[in-house]
Order: sequence, then structure tokens, then C-alpha cells
Amino acid sequence: MSVQVGIIMGSQSDLPVMSEAALALEELGVKYELTVVSAHRTPERMVDYAKSARERGLKVIIAGAGGAAHLPGMVASMTSLPVIGVPIKSSNSIDGWDSVLSILQMPGGIPVATVALNGAKNAGILAASIVGAYDEQVGKNLDNYKKSLKEKVEEDAKKIETKGWRSALKK
Amino acid sequence: MSVQVGIIMGSQSDLPVMSEAALALEELGVKYELTVVSAHRTPERMVDYAKSARERGLKVIIAGAGGAAHLPGMVASMTSLPVIGVPIKSSNSIDGWDSVLSILQMPGGIPVATVALNGAKNAGILAASIVGAYDEQVGKNLDNYKKSLKEKVEEDAKKIETKGWRSALKK
Amino acid sequence: MSVQVGIIMGSQSDLPVMSEAALALEELGVKYELTVVSAHRTPERMVDYAKSARERGLKVIIAGAGGAAHLPGMVASMTSLPVIGVPIKSSNSIDGWDSVLSILQMPGGIPVATVALNGAKNAGILAASIVGAYDEQVGKNLDNYKKSLKEKVEEDAKKIETKGWRSALKK
Amino acid sequence: MSVQVGIIMGSQSDLPVMSEAALALEELGVKYELTVVSAHRTPERMVDYAKSARERGLKVIIAGAGGAAHLPGMVASMTSLPVIGVPIKSSNSIDGWDSVLSILQMPGGIPVATVALNGAKNAGILAASIVGAYDEQVGKNLDNYKKSLKEKVEEDAKKIETKGWRSALKK
Amino acid sequence: MSVQVGIIMGSQSDLPVMSEAALALEELGVKYELTVVSAHRTPERMVDYAKSARERGLKVIIAGAGGAAHLPGMVASMTSLPVIGVPIKSSNSIDGWDSVLSILQMPGGIPVATVALNGAKNAGILAASIVGAYDEQVGKNLDNYKKSLKEKVEEDAKKIETKGWRSALKK
Amino acid sequence: MSVQVGIIMGSQSDLPVMSEAALALEELGVKYELTVVSAHRTPERMVDYAKSARERGLKVIIAGAGGAAHLPGMVASMTSLPVIGVPIKSSNSIDGWDSVLSILQMPGGIPVATVALNGAKNAGILAASIVGAYDEQVGKNLDNYKKSLKEKVEEDAKKIETKGWRSALKK
Amino acid sequence: MSVQVGIIMGSQSDLPVMSEAALALEELGVKYELTVVSAHRTPERMVDYAKSARERGLKVIIAGAGGAAHLPGMVASMTSLPVIGVPIKSSNSIDGWDSVLSILQMPGGIPVATVALNGAKNAGILAASIVGAYDEQVGKNLDNYKKSLKEKVEEDAKKIETKGWRSALKK
Amino acid sequence: MSVQVGIIMGSQSDLPVMSEAALALEELGVKYELTVVSAHRTPERMVDYAKSARERGLKVIIAGAGGAAHLPGMVASMTSLPVIGVPIKSSNSIDGWDSVLSILQMPGGIPVATVALNGAKNAGILAASIVGAYDEQVGKNLDNYKKSLKEKVEEDAKKIETKGWRSALKK
Repeated sequence: MSVQVGIIMGSQSDLPVMSEAALALEELGVKYELTVVSAHRTPERMVDYAKSARERGLKVIIAGAGGAAHLPGMVASMTSLPVIGVPIKSSNSIDGWDSVLSILQMPGGIPVATVALNGAKNAGILAASIVGAYDEQVGKNLDNYKKSLKEKVEEDAKKIETKGWRSALKK
Repeated sequence: MSVQVGIIMGSQSDLPVMSEAALALEELGVKYELTVVSAHRTPERMVDYAKSARERGLKVIIAGAGGAAHLPGMVASMTSLPVIGVPIKSSNSIDGWDSVLSILQMPGGIPVATVALNGAKNAGILAASIVGAYDEQVGKNLDNYKKSLKEKVEEDAKKIETKGWRSALKK
Repeated sequence: MSVQVGIIMGSQSDLPVMSEAALALEELGVKYELTVVSAHRTPERMVDYAKSARERGLKVIIAGAGGAAHLPGMVASMTSLPVIGVPIKSSNSIDGWDSVLSILQMPGGIPVATVALNGAKNAGILAASIVGAYDEQVGKNLDNYKKSLKEKVEEDAKKIETKGWRSALKK
Repeated sequence: MSVQVGIIMGSQSDLPVMSEAALALEELGVKYELTVVSAHRTPERMVDYAKSARERGLKVIIAGAGGAAHLPGMVASMTSLPVIGVPIKSSNSIDGWDSVLSILQMPGGIPVATVALNGAKNAGILAASIVGAYDEQVGKNLDNYKKSLKEKVEEDAKKIETKGWRSALKK
Repeated sequence: MSVQVGIIMGSQSDLPVMSEAALALEELGVKYELTVVSAHRTPERMVDYAKSARERGLKVIIAGAGGAAHLPGMVASMTSLPVIGVPIKSSNSIDGWDSVLSILQMPGGIPVATVALNGAKNAGILAASIVGAYDEQVGKNLDNYKKSLKEKVEEDAKKIETKGWRSALKK
Repeated sequence: MSVQVGIIMGSQSDLPVMSEAALALEELGVKYELTVVSAHRTPERMVDYAKSARERGLKVIIAGAGGAAHLPGMVASMTSLPVIGVPIKSSNSIDGWDSVLSILQMPGGIPVATVALNGAKNAGILAASIVGAYDEQVGKNLDNYKKSLKEKVEEDAKKIETKGWRSALKK
Repeated sequence: MSVQVGIIMGSQSDLPVMSEAALALEELGVKYELTVVSAHRTPERMVDYAKSARERGLKVIIAGAGGAAHLPGMVASMTSLPVIGVPIKSSNSIDGWDSVLSILQMPGGIPVATVALNGAKNAGILAASIVGAYDEQVGKNLDNYKKSLKEKVEEDAKKIETKGWRSALKK
Repeated sequence: MSVQVGIIMGSQSDLPVMSEAALALEELGVKYELTVVSAHRTPERMVDYAKSARERGLKVIIAGAGGAAHLPGMVASMTSLPVIGVPIKSSNSIDGWDSVLSILQMPGGIPVATVALNGAKNAGILAASIVGAYDEQVGKNLDNYKKSLKEKVEEDAKKIETKGWRSALKK
């Protein structure tokens, strides 16, 4: 399998959040690349990245940014690939509303698939679900992942029901 | 081409908004189905829809709902397909914030690809971009669509630049 | 008295908040059960829980969840019992607005009795007031509880009035 | 069956919204009374209403108010019965946030079961679910009501699926 | 001079904030009393306080409360004296919006003079300005207070202008 | 009685809202003056107004403004009289939040007594309550006003209780 | 005087708002050009516009856009000229918050001079004040404009003071 | 070059934020002055500062303030120079919304060029871009600054691409 997903972010300071997308893709067996591309500081680099993505074989782009977050929307304007946007709560953000709204509220014609604030893990899973819609193995990996989520809850529930919530709270 | 995209909505009253997703898919040459499935009023129907979607050949599900909008997230929890959520501004909504946040802020593990408030048209285009990542023809249709958006702007600009903005404003 | 109230939450990480509902019920003499049920990770388990609640003798269900909180509303859609929803402020929440609005703004037909953000204690008291509307002893316990709240305020007031506020502030 | 539910509102101007609670209770076979009680304009009347409610046989109180809505919380402070609060979007409200937050965010010890903005219909159904937890007939009425909601959705869906969404949109 | 201003708060936990009103009044030479009165936990005590305030010689009441803050508005409904409301940002508050809106957005007929979130100091100064409108000495104290504010700014400015901002920043 | 209250507003377009303050003062027997003073367009006029207010015999100033509303706070900075601020929801306001916050959130030292959005009527009543704290007749007028509010509610309630809510709704 | 100010907007539908910037510049004697440039639909055109602006002699760029408004920030990233951003409240905007935050909250390094929601008139005046800082005539025009604002207020005030507010309200 | 930019702030406590404007101007080679001027505590000083700014040779004023921030708007009302406003998130601010809206939402006629919350660095750069529109050297400094931003991103990207994101995350 070649690289399917490109993960980009506006600044290296977004890496602690955005690396969760990479980890999710690794867990689900999807190849990715990851780098820094800034809409405001490296606009030409952004144009090159967006315009070459499809011919380089990518199927999905994940773009994360904070504040007045223009990277996901600008990339989406220059590729026919699906773009997933991750709003990041940065230090001078107004509680994250700025990045959420600058990514979510794209005008008609240029969609960005927005996930939750700091939701890079979900961006990775969403990218895998797109790949998995056409790749049986990735689809199965997703089913197994959901199964493991379920088993974890059932295990937690069982412990609480048998040992009591006070015991679970202590840990 | 078989049906690739399923469009569902919580209530028939959402149809004026959600039909824009259908129109976008028609324009981009992607086959879809459309029906009403309510998370709160027909939970079993929702379970059936979500669980059978993949084996019925769907590649993407678009789900629209207003207020405390649970349909997109609940469907996402029961399929490995990508789910696109459309927040709808309904009559007693608190300015649309309720549907936006109930769809966007999904917990880790269960992503929903959220588009703008009432952004059903963009949901259709996003679904097409997912299909188009694997289907060259749909990819080309998307490129042509973007080209038409661009030409419309250039045409508007030309008229304003040659005839003046007062002339454009009159129309 | 058999178990009257079921307390469920979307994740074990909600237990520090939700255990306050259990403590309130204990103080007011109402029997309860407590476990983990996730709308998104264990949808079948949620269906079973909701559908069997009434026949298992429960009178009220308390459901807590954070972010795009679907558990209270989905449970409410599958039982005729009253469901109390507790919005939980989780780590990547947008200040709690997401869980508040996803629980509060239920569509017509499927109500959830919503309490304050992180208000699990009040959820326990509200559940007791429902039980207490039909059980004289629990009703009396509630009256005594309100009396104790009142006496605590009067005591605080007396100390401040006699010893001065500077003295009260020091403690 | 005697009167089980008391519906009160801060002003007669709230009646168009609050009458939906009455209609819901009538449909579900629960007896109610309805009147105007203002926290700010008739505080003594409010005290009398709240303190006598339980001995007059009420099981639940539904209280609606707009703006800085104090009626539900103040009534809850003076009775051990469950109190359901309906935030009302009045003319100079700040988009309804004021009434939502003044009712929802009650301090520890004094819960109000809050429903959606203008959600009086749901307040009626919630009150019926409380009565129905102890009254088999009302419980059955609720089950039938849910069934009718479900059938309406299924009917809408069938028409759309057979006749196409364009046909449904025209009506 | 007899006691002119009554300072009340919903809970002793509000004292760290509300004591700033007392300090401001002391600095401006206005006599006050201070105690705890809870709208929700001691409603009768609140009624007594509000109804007797005028005949006990008070000219202004300052009332502070957090969350769904009903104390200022309820007191205002039972006295003809001016009531100043202090919204307090408590621990489970939604960023203070709840207390701000529950105090500010009073219905027509029952005003509360609202100050900034946690603005107890300003509540004290505002109360003094009311007393000072009729008491020359307090009026002069206010003028002197404003003069001291001005001198402090001028002094800061002078230091920065002469020694440079880097020097001021170090301190 | 000489003029006690000065009503000012940032623009003549605020008059439809602000005239309600005048009407309230007339009803409560308090003499007032009313004019237009703009913080941004007539800053010198504002300084003159604020600085001369006390010596001209005013006891209270009511100032209304919309958007980034600076008039109430700037006037408060230049007088020792109490200043009541009325946030006005103007056409390009962001739902009124701008004027509310620009008036309410004054820094320590310079309070503004803020009333509800468009709450000019309450500003008039609040001004009267300040005057009435020192003037027995105005105090009595306020008591009578509150009594009339109460009687109106009781009358409404009586009609609903005797003739039924359907009859009240029709009118 | 050559063209000093470039006015651009994301869509011709923004013209009714943005034309107010043109009118303000005309009134203040500053030459401008006006056209449509879309960040998302014509990204190359935007790059060309931004990169050539300075050498074409422009001193200021005014850029207006609605929703997830990326035009002002993207243009600012590609020119050293000052860029003024006008947030526009478009039809599916969430009350304008989206465009305000996507323009205002630019990251460190790339400022946009943001004006009020729909504040194109003020954008024109701000651009003129930049030109006027270096052009005496435009500076004088600005002073005259401010004087006319002042005179309009004084005239309104005089009429109200002499003829009474009831007379002014009628018109 | 004489002093081109005046930096003022409402309180010395704003200096840690506002000093970033000074640093940016130093880096870009623009002379500035910096002092404290409070709209509310030193209104006369503010009037003097604003009215003398132009004749003292300033080209731009940067004004920062928190809470109900009136300094930028009031200064703008008394000068024809461009005024840049910096909203500051102070301790009792409601998440910064108060200062943002009190600076941004200026009425028609009196613009303030608003930058991001705590965006003093960007205010400095914006002021430099205004000066640089007329000063070639400052214009070049801005181009170099943008180039350095770009190189920093490219360097970060290169390291991540060659050494992997895990290595970059460790630092």
C-alpha cells in the first residue's frame, strides 16, 4: 500500500495534537505522510502541496490549524480530494471557537470535513474510514477497532458492577 | 455505477435543506438514495440502516438533523463507513449552536465529518470528493465543478471592472 | 425497597462526577444501581439497558455524558421512564456548551430532564424528588435535607453577623 | 384520577408556548391545572403555590418563564416535588440564552428538570413520564405515543422512497 | 451615619469576592451590614430581609450570587430600594455567563443594577455613589477616590516615560 | 421637585428604546431631562454633560448606547453620580452581546449600573428607586407600581382559572 | 492622485455591504478600485492580486468576506501592505461570529485590521485615515467628516431639547 | 526617522502583553513611544493625547485595553490618525469576549483597526505595514520578516520530513 493520507499542520507547535492522527492511522494500518505547511507563512508551499496531492497518490488530506485557521479551507479549494479539518485550541484562542468556526463554516462549493476541537485522533479514524470504504482490510481493521472500544466499556462496566463504583473510583 | 451515497435526515421537515445534497450529487454524477430515519423516533430503523449500509454497497452516509442532533453520531457508531453530518438550524434551535455542537464534538473513536450549518450542498460535494478519490470520472466532474465556480467569479469581476460596481448593484 | 434509580454514564472517566448522584441518593434513602453504558461504543448494550429498565422495576434513569452527549437522549427515545441528563465538562469540551446543548435541546416528543453542567448531585436529588412524589418516606427525607441546607446557611450567617466577616474569611 | 400536574408561568404572555404542555398532558391522559404565578410580581402567591402543592395532591410542577427566569428555581426551593423548567424565548431575550441558563444552572441542592428552549410540549411529556412511572395506564399511553411518532416517520419515509423526494418537497 | 447599605450573598463561599464591596464602602466612608441570605436555601429569610430593608433604614442593597443567580432579582421584587447585583463566577459556572444573564436580564418592572462578573468592588463604589448623590461628604470621598485613581495612572505613566518600559516590566 | 434624572443616548435612533425610561419616570413622578450625547461623535459635549451634571442638581444619569457602547462608562468616569447603562440592540449588533459587554464589564473603580438589553423601562424604574430611597413620595409611587403589577397578574390568573386557558389564548 | 485603495470581496453577493466602503472613500476624496476575488474559488487570482498590489501603487487593501472568511488573512499573508478585513454576516452564518473570528483571530506575524460586522463604511474611513496620515488633504477631509458627524448630533439634540422627545419620536 | 507610532494602554498591568507591540516595531525598524493612558481614570489625559497625536508627528496609534475596553474607540473619536485596538484578556474578563466586542464593534464613522485577543505583536506589525506603505525601508523590513517566518516553517518541515515526527515531538 502506498501513502494514502497526508497530514499537515500550520505550525510545529500543533504536533502534540496532530500526532494523534498519525497514531490512529498506524493502528488502523493506513500509510500516511506528515509535515508542516502554513497557509499564512508559506502560501506557495501550501499551493504546491494541495495541487500535487492527488497525482502523488493521496486519497485524503488531514489539515490542522488554530485561531483563524485557514489551512484546511485553502487546501480544500485547490484539490478535488476530501480534506479533513482539525480545529486546534491554541494559547490565545477564544476558547477554540475561532478555529472551529474558521474551519467548519466554509462557503457553498468548498467543503471541509470538520472534526471536534483538538480531535486529531478522530481525523485519523475518519481518514481510515474513507480509505476503508474501498479497502476491505482497512474496513476490517475499523470493525476490530470498534470492537475493542466496546470491549473496553464492557470490561469497565463489569468491574463496577461486581466490585462497586467506590472501588473503581479509587484507581 | 450503483448507489454510492445514502442521504438520511431526522424528519421530513429537513428535506428543503437536505435536498441540496441530492442536487449536488446529481450534478457531480454520483448515485444516491434518500430517506427519513429518526434517531429518537425510529431507533431500530436507524440501527438497521447503519448496520446494513456497507453490505448494501454504500460508500458514504450523509445524515442531517437539527437541535440535539444525534442521528449522524449514532449512525457513525454502527458502521465503518465515513459519515458526513449536516447541522440543521430548526425553528426552536438556539441559533444553530445546538445542532453544530451535537454533531461536531464527537468523542474520540467515533468521528463525524461535519459541514457548515445548513451546509447540505457541501455535504453532497464532500461525499462526491470521497467517491472521486477512487473514481476518476467523479474526480474530473469535481475539477470541472471547481472550474465553473472560478469562471463565475471571473465573469462577475469582469463586469464590475468594466461597467462599474453601481451597475452590478442595480441588478 | 427495590432499586428505583439507574445511574449510567458514557465512560468510566465520568465516574468522579457521576458518583455524586449516587451519594445524593444514598443520603436520601433511595436504592440505585450504577454502571457504564456508552451510546457510541456499546449501542446494543444501550438499547438493552433502555428497553429493559421499566420491567426491571426502575422508576428513573440518570444518564451522564460529555461532548456530543447522545446517551441521555437515546435512552429517553427507548423507554417511557423519565430520563435525567447530566452534561459533563470533559477535557476537550468547548467549555461544556457541547454537552449542555446536546442533552438539553431534544426535539419535540422525546424529553430529557437536564440538570446543570456537572450537576450529578442535583440529578440524584431530582431522581429522589420523583421517587418521593410517590413515597412518603423519601418525601420526608427531602424535606429534612432542605432543612439542613437552610440551617447551614443560618449558622454561617449567624457567625458572620456576630464575629464579623473578616473572621469568617480567615477560615 | 385527581389533578397530578400543576402548570404555571410567569406571565399570561407565556401562554402560547406553555399551552403546549397542557395539550401534551391531555393527549397522554394526565389531569392538570394551569395558572399564572410570577416570581417577581407576585412573590407571596408563588410561595403559597409552591408550599401547598404537595398537600394539594400534585406530583409534578411545570414552570415556564423567560429572560432572567427565576420562577422554576424559586418554586423548586420551596417544595419536595419535582419541578420541570421551561425556558421561554421572549422578545428582548438574548437569543434565549438568558432563560436557559437561569433555569438550568441551579446550585447544588435545588435541582430543576430543564427542557429545551420553548420546549413546553416536552415538559408535558416529561411530567407524564413521571406520573407514568407509577401509573400503568399513563405508561401505556406514553408507549402508544412513541409508537405513533415512529409510524409517522415510517410513513414519511415510505412516501419519499416510493414517490421520490421531489414529490415530497412540493407539498 | 446609620447603616446605609446591606451586603448579602447566597453562600459563605461568595465571601472572598463579596468582601471587596465591604472594603470599598469602608474606604468611601459608608456604613454597611453584611450577611448570608440564600434565595434557594432560605427563601423565608430572604423575604424577611427584603421586606424589612427600607424600614430598617437601608438605602441600597448589594446582592451577590453565582450560577442561576436568583437572589438579586428576588430581593428586588420585594423592596422599593435600589438593588445592585454582583454576578459571581463559581466553580461549575459556564464561564460566568449563567450568573451574568440571570441577574442582568430581569423582566420589565423589576430592575437590578448589574455590575461586572465578580465586580463586588464596583458594587461597593456604585452603592456609595447612590448614597453620595444625597450626602455631600460621601460625594467628596468619591471625588477623592477618582483623583487617587488618576494619580496612580499618571505616576505609572511618568515612570515608564522616564525609565522606559523595560524597567517597568521587570518589577 | 427639580430635575432629578438625566437621560442621554448616543444617537437619536436610540429614542424609540430610550423613551421608555422617560415614560417610566413620568409614571413614577420623577422629573427628568432627555437629550442626545454621543461619546464618539461629540466627545467634548459628553465631557461637559458629565462634569456639570452634579452641580446642575441631577441625582442619577441614564445613558443608553448600542454596539461598542462607550457612553455610559465614559460618563461614569467623569462624575460621582450613579450612572445607569442601557445596552441597545442596534442593527449590526452581534445579537446585542457587544453593547451588553461594553457597558457591563467596566474595570474596577468605575461602575456602571447595567440593566437588561433594551431595558430602558427598567432603567427608569431603577433611577426612580434611587430617588425614592431618599424621597418618601417616590418610594410610595414605587410601592403602588409594584402593587399594580401584582394585581395585573392576579387578574390574569383569575380569568384563566375561571374561564380556562383556551379562552385566554383566544384574545 | 492615483488609486490608493483596493476593495475586494469574496463574492458579488457581498457588494451591497462592501459598496459602503467605496462610498466612504469617495466622500473622503480617496481613489480606489473595486473587484471580486475569491480565496476559495479563485485562489490563483487572489495570489496575483495580493502580490502585485504594492507595485501597482496601492497603499491599503480592504477585503470583505462572510462565513469561514479566509480572503483578508490570505491576502495579508502575501503583501506587506496593511489589509483591512470586513466580516460579512451572510445568510447561513452563525450570527456573524464565524466571519468575525476567521478574520480577527489571525496568528502572530500576519495581522488583519478588522472592523465591525458588516462595517464596510468604517473600513473605507479607516483606509482613508491611513492615506490621510501621509496626505494633508485627506487628513483635512477626515476632520471635516468628523465635524459633520458632530454637527448632526448637536442638531438632533437641539431639536429634542426645544421641541421635546415626543415630537422627535413621531418623525 | 522621528517617532511614528504611539503605543498606549489602559493600565500598567497591560504592559506584559503590550510590550510585544514595542518589540515588533523595534524588529521592523519603526520608532515608537509607549505610555499609560486610561480612558476611565484619566479622561483628560486621553483627550490631550488623542488631540495632539497628529501634530506631534505620529502616524499611527496602538491602544490596548481589557474588559469594557473604551480607550481605542475614544482615542479614535478624537484623531484623524488610524487607531489600532488590542483587546486584552484580563483576569475578570468573560473569556476575552468583552474586550474584543468593545473594541471591534465601533459605530459607523469611527473605525478601530482591531487585532486578535492579546495580539499586541500583530498590532506592532500592522502599524509597521502602515508606515511601510509609505516608507520603502520599512516595507523591505516587512518583506524580510515574512521571509524569515517562511524559512522557519520550511526548516521545521524539513526536520520532520527527514527525522520523523516522533523526533520533533521529543524536543
